[in-house]
Amino acid sequence: MEAGLPPLPATAKCIRCHGRATIRMPNHNALFCADCFVHFFHTGVTRAMAKFGVSPDEPLMVAVSGGKDSLAVWNALHETGYATRGLHVRLGIDEFSDASSEAVRRFAEDRRLPWAEYSLEEIFGYSVDAIRWRTRRKICSVCGLLKRQMLNRLTVREGYRTLVVGHNLDDEAGRLLGNMVRHRTQFFEKQYPFLPSSHPRLPSKLKPLYRLDAREIRAYCRVKGILPLEAKCPHSRGATSHAYKEALEMLETRMPGTKRDFLFSYVDRRKPPVLSADIGTCKSCGEPAFGDLCSVCKLSDHLKKQQDELETP
Amino acid sequence: MEAGLPPLPATAKCIRCHGRATIRMPNHNALFCADCFVHFFHTGVTRAMAKFGVSPDEPLMVAVSGGKDSLAVWNALHETGYATRGLHVRLGIDEFSDASSEAVRRFAEDRRLPWAEYSLEEIFGYSVDAIRWRTRRKICSVCGLLKRQMLNRLTVREGYRTLVVGHNLDDEAGRLLGNMVRHRTQFFEKQYPFLPSSHPRLPSKLKPLYRLDAREIRAYCRVKGILPLEAKCPHSRGATSHAYKEALEMLETRMPGTKRDFLFSYVDRRKPPVLSADIGTCKSCGEPAFGDLCSVCKLSDHLKKQQDELETP
Repeated sequence: MEAGLPPLPATAKCIRCHGRATIRMPNHNALFCADCFVHFFHTGVTRAMAKFGVSPDEPLMVAVSGGKDSLAVWNALHETGYATRGLHVRLGIDEFSDASSEAVRRFAEDRRLPWAEYSLEEIFGYSVDAIRWRTRRKICSVCGLLKRQMLNRLTVREGYRTLVVGHNLDDEAGRLLGNMVRHRTQFFEKQYPFLPSSHPRLPSKLKPLYRLDAREIRAYCRVKGILPLEAKCPHSRGATSHAYKEALEMLETRMPGTKRDFLFSYVDRRKPPVLSADIGTCKSCGEPAFGDLCSVCKLSDHLKKQQDELETP
Repeated sequence: MEAGLPPLPATAKCIRCHGRATIRMPNHNALFCADCFVHFFHTGVTRAMAKFGVSPDEPLMVAVSGGKDSLAVWNALHETGYATRGLHVRLGIDEFSDASSEAVRRFAEDRRLPWAEYSLEEIFGYSVDAIRWRTRRKICSVCGLLKRQMLNRLTVREGYRTLVVGHNLDDEAGRLLGNMVRHRTQFFEKQYPFLPSSHPRLPSKLKPLYRLDAREIRAYCRVKGILPLEAKCPHSRGATSHAYKEALEMLETRMPGTKRDFLFSYVDRRKPPVLSADIGTCKSCGEPAFGDLCSVCKLSDHLKKQQDELETP
């Protein structure tokens, strides 16, 4: 039974196989049995992969936080025949990080899937909680930067060329709406579910769930017995990205299909971005950088300087 | 006192004159006394008029429905020195039209402002209520078309070159959002608060309230003793334009200033549209038309044909 909705009657029929329906998809005006829903979900993922032009033999590194999106995309890629490896960065956000790590471990062990865990504190020198008290920048933006950078670097370090992330339809549509409302046209270029590599030390980035929304992903986890971390990051309260998603959700309720049409017709009328080749190399660590120093080294310098000041009597 | 908010304390100060404040403007983080609020409101209108480059001597025809927006813009233009004349089209929507007409009459007589009323039934042959039962098209879209066309034609017939309409910040921002979400890029050209004339029989069209939102317009009516028609058109329930306005209102509540920034940065980075000169002349009535027949004559032909069919035994 789905949250907030009465159970489907025993006579409800799956629109694909005409067996007994157990899953309701109001946004598609459809009912599915569990098997046909999985077929629908996997088709969404394989259509995305085909659009990105990724070879079925390409080994995929999957960024996994332990939340519903990353576990669902990992499961779907594994079940549709891709060779995958999970990559978890332990951010060091108190009990939230323990629970995230545990959700990934449980999922991977149950399915005997390979994965690796790295601690941000070990690879960068500071946990997110430690950074929080040493910077005036918004912690969500610092954490996002470090997560992106570390996932890119660790993917390449582990010998992979392609990184999968779990961003879903709601994330992508909300981000697009935010960029439109703020007229941030400079960000439109990178608003595409497939970003090809623009540097030998940058992996390509895929978002195979961009065609599936949070509700569908939750249903997929339920059907597949995936137990994602349900807790929200304690720092994420009041994030503005939620507001754009909520605004779209409101439009979706009033005009079903709006969210999908909004994102898909944007994606469909675009070509995959050709990222600027003027990306250089960080003088300090050799990673890709837009200036002399990469954003990670800049942040690290700032944190070290502040620590020195605090420790100087 | 404003709806839903406690009255301001006697110590609250106007940010402009430091007198006692009676009007609260949370979107601007400001408090005003009544006089300074009127100054703020009139400045919004005169800034818009200056942006449109309209000469202060240009006589203005003001489209008035009897609602808050059209009466407020008429009042503001009159008080800031423009020569104005009101133009009311009586649509024939049962008691709603009686009340609209009465609101306009009361406002104009109190202020001794010149105005003219035309009945849609007399000038077009059918009232909105009569059309409603003769067409499958959505009545709001038919009514909107007729209103626009009749206002344009009557403005020119009365010897005016410039038509003012009451669309406010919320209307314009909601329309822009709807066009963006639906990727209706072909409508972006006409999304500007000033549309210059593109045909000898088309007036220029101004929206001097595009910088002021519904809340500010309601406060202006209160201060100026304007009594607009409060009833909504009985046909307007569930209009999708409301959904976009509500979505923006939600974003505004979470991130004050969003609505304004969204519309103003769009308007400010554009130039007034240069409308296509390929507009022709209707073979039947001589009015501007994009094909052989103008949209009004097409609609009229359709309604007559249907009436003939009904009357043929």
